[in-house]
Parts: sequence; structure tokens; C-alpha cells
Amino acid sequence: MLGELFAWRRDVRRFRSDPVAEELLRACLSLAHRSPSVGNSQPWRFVRVSDRERRAAVIANFERCNAIAAAGYADAKRDRYRRLKLEGLREAPIHLAVFCDDATGAGHGLGRGTMPEMLHYSVVGAVQSFWLGARAHGLGVGWVSIVERDKVRRILAVPETWHLIAYLCVGFPVEEHLDPELERNGWQGRCEAATRLLER
Amino acid sequence: MLGELFAWRRDVRRFRSDPVAEELLRACLSLAHRSPSVGNSQPWRFVRVSDRERRAAVIANFERCNAIAAAGYADAKRDRYRRLKLEGLREAPIHLAVFCDDATGAGHGLGRGTMPEMLHYSVVGAVQSFWLGARAHGLGVGWVSIVERDKVRRILAVPETWHLIAYLCVGFPVEEHLDPELERNGWQGRCEAATRLLER
Repeated sequence: MLGELFAWRRDVRRFRSDPVAEELLRACLSLAHRSPSVGNSQPWRFVRVSDRERRAAVIANFERCNAIAAAGYADAKRDRYRRLKLEGLREAPIHLAVFCDDATGAGHGLGRGTMPEMLHYSVVGAVQSFWLGARAHGLGVGWVSIVERDKVRRILAVPETWHLIAYLCVGFPVEEHLDPELERNGWQGRCEAATRLLER
Repeated sequence: MLGELFAWRRDVRRFRSDPVAEELLRACLSLAHRSPSVGNSQPWRFVRVSDRERRAAVIANFERCNAIAAAGYADAKRDRYRRLKLEGLREAPIHLAVFCDDATGAGHGLGRGTMPEMLHYSVVGAVQSFWLGARAHGLGVGWVSIVERDKVRRILAVPETWHLIAYLCVGFPVEEHLDPELERNGWQGRCEAATRLLER
């Protein structure tokens, strides 16, 4: 059951434009809120981006960053990169920005002395929980990382202590796949090193 | 169903010492291997720590770091911190160290130009996938972050480019809870800010 959900949970970049019922979104968010966090600090802050100008500014930032990324590859790799569809920002009915509140006092620093990045990791966990919950409800999620975090923070006018962890596209997927799109397109297949269990 | 699993998935610090069948561990790992990763880079590297001396060295490092962390709190908070049980390193039948291979070429840098930490985030996702899979199979997992990452890397003699993301205790839990232990113990309860959806 869980294995099926995991296999089916793909990064979605092709969305139908139909709206998502508010209760459905809330159900996925409430699953994310139950995610583990260091010291029970719950540092995730979810922001829905609906304003047309703000969305356009995020898309412009993606396009700029993506052009720079493409230019960093040589020849055939660059052409292949350019053919990839890496986000569904224009079609997805919901944009969600997920931040970590670096200034939160919650958790009282527990578990963060030697690994302060645990606070960010807790938000990553909440994003993945949201993702699994969304898939279980038939929704698709795509994680867009080809943006500048400080720029997105300023576009969304959130506090300076909020650190962008993820920018998510959410909506119903156009197609369902069990294999990753980057594998299907010949960008990157399974890695043997990732499946080995080392013994020490 | 998934909601129940999420509610039941706790950070476990009290383990039974019974062994865990190899097939069970492998099933949880294979779920983790299906976790999403930036550019399909699959940068996670799982290391099982069974050697008695290596385990003792990790425990010694935890104890040192934990004493320093306790000393950082004042008075009543320090006493409360010291009463918390923060790990099950001595009882857990399995120790798993989870690293990110920062030097991996897999994924060809896709999605990491502006957010290079996406590689680490991908490993955090794999840890959480492992955690959910383990709970679905009745196992408990505890994430120990009160260690020094470089020290643990040296104890385990893994490559210098491997960055420690998590040190996990794995085994059957002594008790089951639906509420976080840190909430039950009065350290940190639910945060309202974490459950708000901001609109922009």
C-alpha cells in the first residue's frame, strides 16, 4: 500500500487547470503539520500565492534562473536540458511557498546544537508529508528549486527570518507515471550506489 | 489511513532489544530508495553500524554533545532537559547512519544551481520515507541529531565528501504513543503559527 503510494508519488510538472477544493488542500496541509520536527519546533510556514503579479514575478525569476542553468551545460546536454519540462508554474491552480522560520523559539533549541540545519530539515519533512498526502488524495505536487530564495521571500513580503525551503506547484496531474520523468527522458536513471547498504 | 500512520509515527527513544529481521530492514530501505531526489540524483548512502567499538564511539560523542547542550540551559530548564530521554542508542538493535554524497555526479546538477542544499534535502526525504515505512511495518525509528557530523564520519571511515544527515536508531518500540514525547513532557506543545495558511 505505502509502497504503491511511494512509486506513484512523482514530481508533477503537467497540471490540469481545474480548481482544487479548499477542504482537500486543508487535509493535505493538516497531514504536513503532523510531520516530525526537531525539538517539536514545527518551524514550517505555508504561504499560498494567489496574487497574479506575485505569481508572475516568481515565474520570471524561475525563467531567469533556468536560462542561467541551461547555459551552464555544454552542447548536447544543453539541448537536452532545454527540452525538459521542469515546472508547471503557469498551469498549476495552487502555488505554495514553504518557509522555515529561523527565528522561532519553539523547541527551545533542542537537538540543534551541533546540527543547526535540523530546523530546515524539519521543513523538508513537512514538504514530503504534504506531497505524500496530496498524492494519496489524487493531487500532484511539483517541487520547483530553480528560483532564488531571497528574491522569492521579497516577492512574497514575508519576514526576513523566513528561509525558503520549497516552492510547490499543486493541482491534478495531466498524466500518471510510475517512473521518474528524468529517467524516462534519459537524464538520470537509477543509481546502484544509492541502493547499497554499507556495513561498518 | 495515511493520517493514522502519520499520527502514529513518533520519534522513538525506547526500544526492545529483539533483533529485526533482515528482510524487514531491506523492505524499509527499498521504500527509502524510492524517495524523490533533486535531478533524480539519489544522493543517500545508508550505513549500518554494527561494530561494537564504532557504536561506543558514537555513543560517547552523543554524551559529550548532550552534556554541552544541557549546560546551555539555565536552572529549571536544564533540569528538565536532563530528564528527557533523547535517544535509544544503547538498546536499539540497529544503528543506521545516513549520509549525502556531496560529490555524486548523478543528476548532473539539475535543480541545484540556486539551491545547492537540495542535495541534502533529498536525503532528508529518504530518511522520512524510511521512517514512515518502518512505522508501517511496526518498527520504531529515532533520529539522533546531538552528535558531531565530522566526528561520526571519521568514526565510520566513510569518504570525506559524505555529509552526515541523520543518525538513526531502529528497532521495535517499547511503547506506542499518538502524542509527541516532548509535548507529553511539557517541553514543547503544538504551535499555532505552524498550522496557519498565509495568503499572498
